[in-house]
Amino acid sequence: MHVSELETPSVLINLDIMERNIRRMQDHCNALGLAFRPHTKTHKIPDIAKMQLEAGAIGIACQKVSEAEVFAQAGINDIQIPYNVVGVKKTQRLVDLALYNHMTVSADHTMVVAGLADAAKTEDMALRVLVDLATAEQRTGASPYELVELAKRIEKEVHLHFAGVLVYPSDPSARPALLETLDLLNTAGIGVDVVSGGGFGAARFADQMPELTELRVGTYVFGDYGSVVKEWCTLADCAMTIAATVVTTDRVILDSGSKTLTSDRIQDGHGYIVEYPEARIYKLSEEHGHCDFSACAERPVIGEQVHIIPVHTCVVTNMHNQIYGIRDGEIEVEWPVAARGLVW
Amino acid sequence: MHVSELETPSVLINLDIMERNIRRMQDHCNALGLAFRPHTKTHKIPDIAKMQLEAGAIGIACQKVSEAEVFAQAGINDIQIPYNVVGVKKTQRLVDLALYNHMTVSADHTMVVAGLADAAKTEDMALRVLVDLATAEQRTGASPYELVELAKRIEKEVHLHFAGVLVYPSDPSARPALLETLDLLNTAGIGVDVVSGGGFGAARFADQMPELTELRVGTYVFGDYGSVVKEWCTLADCAMTIAATVVTTDRVILDSGSKTLTSDRIQDGHGYIVEYPEARIYKLSEEHGHCDFSACAERPVIGEQVHIIPVHTCVVTNMHNQIYGIRDGEIEVEWPVAARGLVW
Repeated sequence: MHVSELETPSVLINLDIMERNIRRMQDHCNALGLAFRPHTKTHKIPDIAKMQLEAGAIGIACQKVSEAEVFAQAGINDIQIPYNVVGVKKTQRLVDLALYNHMTVSADHTMVVAGLADAAKTEDMALRVLVDLATAEQRTGASPYELVELAKRIEKEVHLHFAGVLVYPSDPSARPALLETLDLLNTAGIGVDVVSGGGFGAARFADQMPELTELRVGTYVFGDYGSVVKEWCTLADCAMTIAATVVTTDRVILDSGSKTLTSDRIQDGHGYIVEYPEARIYKLSEEHGHCDFSACAERPVIGEQVHIIPVHTCVVTNMHNQIYGIRDGEIEVEWPVAARGLVW
Repeated sequence: MHVSELETPSVLINLDIMERNIRRMQDHCNALGLAFRPHTKTHKIPDIAKMQLEAGAIGIACQKVSEAEVFAQAGINDIQIPYNVVGVKKTQRLVDLALYNHMTVSADHTMVVAGLADAAKTEDMALRVLVDLATAEQRTGASPYELVELAKRIEKEVHLHFAGVLVYPSDPSARPALLETLDLLNTAGIGVDVVSGGGFGAARFADQMPELTELRVGTYVFGDYGSVVKEWCTLADCAMTIAATVVTTDRVILDSGSKTLTSDRIQDGHGYIVEYPEARIYKLSEEHGHCDFSACAERPVIGEQVHIIPVHTCVVTNMHNQIYGIRDGEIEVEWPVAARGLVW
C-alpha cells in the first residue's frame, strides 16, 4: 500500500532513516568502546528494539516495570530500568522479572533501596542496583557522598548488588561530580561494574566522559524537531513524520492537534511541516493544528496531505496504537506500539 | 478493591462527582429549553455516554468518524461530528454510518461540501450538514455571508440537507455574527433546524444566546484544573484525579510526567495536587512530575500516594487505556477507553 492511501493523522517512520540512525549511534559507541543500551521509551516496540540489538546494542532500557515485561516477553532479556521503582507490587514484579532476565534498576534514596531489598529477600538473587547521581537536570539523583552511602547500604543487603553509577544526562558538566563519586567509591573499596550515561544531547560528548562504560539514548532512533533545534541531529535524520490533512484553508488548519502531537512545544511552534518549511504550527486544539502560512510562497488546499516532524517523538509514540514503517513511499510494516498505555 | 491498591499512575473518576456533573448540566439545559448533546471527546467511553443520554441528552458529539463508529456500535445512534470530514475514505465511512444512524456533520468550505456530496450521492439519503460559523476562536468556520452561500450550495445537493448553524464556542460575543447569519438565511428563505452551540465556558452564558437550540459540552463531565482557573467549575466539581506516587523527595518527584498528564499547562503548572494545595508541578519529564513543595507546611515521603487534578482532562483520557470509577474509596468500575487511539 502506498503511504498516501493511509488515513490521517498517521505516524510514519522512514525506515531508511531509522536504520541509518541505528547504525550511526552504534558505530559512535563502538568507536568509543562504549556499550550501547537504547532506551525503548521512544518507540515502545519490541521489533525495533530487536533491530537495535542486532546492530550491536547490549540490552535495552525501559522506564517502567510494565514496559520491561512487554520487552522481556518478546525475548529481550537484558533490561535496565533507570527509575526509582517504588511500591510493593512494582518491586515484586521487578523481582519476578529478575528471576529470568538480566535486570538492573536504579535508586537514589535509602527508602527505595529498602523496598528493593524487601522484595528481593525471598529469592535466591542479587538484584543489580545502580545508584543515580544528581546532575544539573535537578530530577532524581543523590550527591556523591549520599551515593557512596547508598552503595554501602546496597552492599550490605544479601539480595542486592551495587552495580555502579547512573548519570542522566551524562553531559561533561556532570563529570566533576562523577569523578568525585568514583574516587569516593574507590576509597571505600566498593567496586563499580557499570557507569551508565544517557541522553541524546550528551551522546555527542561521550568522548569527553571516558569514565562511562555504557550509554542510554532513546530519541536518536526517530529524531524530532526538538532535537534539530538543539542541534542534536539534522532534519535529514528525522525518521518520524505525522501525515496530516489540511481541513480548513481560510486559516490553515490541519487534522492533527494535541491528541496527535501532544502539547510539547519548542521555540515558536508545535512541529516542522516538511512541505512548507516556512509555515508555523502556532497553536493546537485537541484535533486541530492551527498554522500560520503567511511566510510561505504558496498555501495548501483543503484535502492536501502534509508531513509534520513532531517536536518530541517519544510522547507522540505514547499516544498512538500503531505506527507505520515506510520505504520508497510504500508501507512496509505496521507496528503495534506494544508497550504504550501501561500503568505499572 | 480499595482505590489505594491500584498501581500508579492511574486515572480515577469520582463517580458521585461525575454523576452530579451530568445531572447539573442536563438540568441547566432543561431549564433553558436547550437540547443537550454531550461531547464524548472528554471520556471516549460508551458507558459514560449512556449515562449522559439516560439523564436526558438527545445524542452525542464525536470529533472523528472512527470515534463515531465506536459509539454507534455501542448502540448510540444520534451522533454529530462538528468537524470538516475530508478525504474519500473518511466521507465514505461517514455515509456508511449515516445509513443506519442519525448523523450530522459540519462544513465550512465548498470543497468540504463537495466531498460530502460526492460520498452521499450513491445512497438514498440526505446527509445533515451544519455550517460552521467563524468565531473569535479563529479556528474553523465561515463568515455569515459565506455561510449562507454554503447553505445554498448544500440545499442544491440532492443527497445533502442543510441542518443549520454550528458555533464554537457559543459565547455571547459570537451573537452578533449569529444574528446576522440567521437574518441572511431567513432572507434567503433557507430553513434552520438546529443552532448548535458549544464549549464548557460558553455553557454558563447560554441564557444570553436564545437562538441556540442545542448545546455541546464535553469537559463538564470530569472537570479539570484548567476549567477551575477559568472559573468554569470549582475544585469540588473535578471528578478526575491521577493517583501518583512520590518517588524522590530531595526534590519531590512524582511518577506522573508528560506521558500521564500531557504537557498541557495553565498559569504556573501542570495540575493541582489535592493533598498539597500549595505545591506546584512546575515541570514534567516523560515519567517524572517535578514539584515545588517550598510553600507547603509538610513534605511527602517516598512511596506516599497523592492525587493530581489534571490541567486538561480530555487529553489525559486520550493517553490511557483504562480509567477507574471509584465510590467511597472503592473501585466500582474499570472502563476501557474504547474510542481512544483511533486514526480516522
